[in-house]
Amino acid sequence: MSVLVVGSTALDSIKTPKSENPRLLGGSASHAAIAASFFAPVKLVGIVGDDFPKRYVQLYRRHKIDLDGLQIVPGKTFHWAGEYEINMNNRRTLTTELGVFETFSPRLPNSHQETPYVLLANIAPTLQHHVLDQIRRPKLVIADTMDLWLNIALADLLKLIRRVDAFVLNDSEARQLTQEDNLVSALKKIHRLGPKYVIVKKGEHGSIVSSPAGLFVAPAFPLHKVVDPTGAGDSFVGGLLGYLASRKGNIDAHLRRAVVYGSAVASFCCEGFGLTRTIRIRRDDIERRVKLMETLARF
Amino acid sequence: MSVLVVGSTALDSIKTPKSENPRLLGGSASHAAIAASFFAPVKLVGIVGDDFPKRYVQLYRRHKIDLDGLQIVPGKTFHWAGEYEINMNNRRTLTTELGVFETFSPRLPNSHQETPYVLLANIAPTLQHHVLDQIRRPKLVIADTMDLWLNIALADLLKLIRRVDAFVLNDSEARQLTQEDNLVSALKKIHRLGPKYVIVKKGEHGSIVSSPAGLFVAPAFPLHKVVDPTGAGDSFVGGLLGYLASRKGNIDAHLRRAVVYGSAVASFCCEGFGLTRTIRIRRDDIERRVKLMETLARF
Repeated sequence: MSVLVVGSTALDSIKTPKSENPRLLGGSASHAAIAASFFAPVKLVGIVGDDFPKRYVQLYRRHKIDLDGLQIVPGKTFHWAGEYEINMNNRRTLTTELGVFETFSPRLPNSHQETPYVLLANIAPTLQHHVLDQIRRPKLVIADTMDLWLNIALADLLKLIRRVDAFVLNDSEARQLTQEDNLVSALKKIHRLGPKYVIVKKGEHGSIVSSPAGLFVAPAFPLHKVVDPTGAGDSFVGGLLGYLASRKGNIDAHLRRAVVYGSAVASFCCEGFGLTRTIRIRRDDIERRVKLMETLARF
Repeated sequence: MSVLVVGSTALDSIKTPKSENPRLLGGSASHAAIAASFFAPVKLVGIVGDDFPKRYVQLYRRHKIDLDGLQIVPGKTFHWAGEYEINMNNRRTLTTELGVFETFSPRLPNSHQETPYVLLANIAPTLQHHVLDQIRRPKLVIADTMDLWLNIALADLLKLIRRVDAFVLNDSEARQLTQEDNLVSALKKIHRLGPKYVIVKKGEHGSIVSSPAGLFVAPAFPLHKVVDPTGAGDSFVGGLLGYLASRKGNIDAHLRRAVVYGSAVASFCCEGFGLTRTIRIRRDDIERRVKLMETLARF
């Protein structure tokens, strides 16, 4: 079954101590859509300016991503520039130029409104609400977020959490949202805000999933070298939902493996700047890495 | 088979935002010996002053710990006082009174010199060397350490690492020791320093084990409440080695489960101040928690 991905479609300029990488394809929706595309047909909803490189449109197309919901309008594409320190966990934003994204109002083509799997990738909660208002009878809705929205749009975010099946955030965001230092207690508090599934991303430490079936402590794939973690969280949730969309039966039966598949795609994402590594892998590479993760975690 | 544990035997005064707990039984050897005692006979080597409470001697005895190697000498027992912030990852030392520990020179009774499993729990590397010099034909020697020794006794520590089969340290120590931010690369560098097995503790994020058989990414038991993490690392390595000593066959065949058993004991340690929770559990409780960890990690 197919996956609808709504989020940001951007150009990322990523600086590290060793290199500069201007105007890579980026944005939460780009990473999530490419990640999901390894498993299921994907419909992308986003906005770009008329400066958006044609090769990036072709890249989406090579991944068979339906672009009927991608608005291409006069103006500049959302541009983010950031710099990583030697420790890849420390990042600072150099520039945020919203461009056409400032006026983004996601409009779902009729053909998109009954997509069974919906990923509200990281964008402003008001936009995520706006998408949900246009969706009919989804099988599963997952929302991702970032610390920015906890800081400047908490009320909207809390309303959104109540409307989704699954909520994804990282560990520091979970602590901030719940004012709870203990992650297991934080998970319980987030369930009380509405979602049936809560997924906490912990980067190199893996993730924790809380569902009616209990907790799942998922490993991350141990990488020898992290080139650029930008988009890893988006790749994780995109891969996760793509995998779920590819499986028959109920969500609970497949959620754990979906998380592992998401982690596998995210690990590839970290091995190159932007999407440069992810777009070079095939489904087989993901399968091999999932098998490795089975071996690494078995006891 | 039996386990020899050498390390500090201390009185710990532990303060948290909510309570004060003066003069608890503490020290790396106490935590490790009690943890190992659930699985195998333990011989403790350490030193205490004549102020050492009799009830703590009785506590060791209840765990059937051989105290022939425990020196009780005139003077004060090593006393450590520390304070935890609300976030239990932040701790500061208030007092360190070495007392009789200042003149500690571990002397192994004859009966201890052929113990097959040896744990050099966290103490000064020179003392760990001194123990190794008295050991004959051990089956497995594990050394633990702490950042202090990386800072003030690095040369001794590097010499020690070359002499042991397994080296245990936490993630920030691994990064400090190797000047390598990536943990997988740090593990490789530590192998080059000598040990066949390298075990990196990551607290609530579990641990990573590197051995000739490859990597093992081990989960931590997700706790709803951490009361006091003091001694968790010592409990981990004590439980780990105790479990190994209880199994027939080669180390590699049992190492993964040993790590999980160590984690289980460490999780109990965190649920009470000092050893107060650990001494109330039984082997059955550990088995149940290991089974839970299997359920939590399965995919």
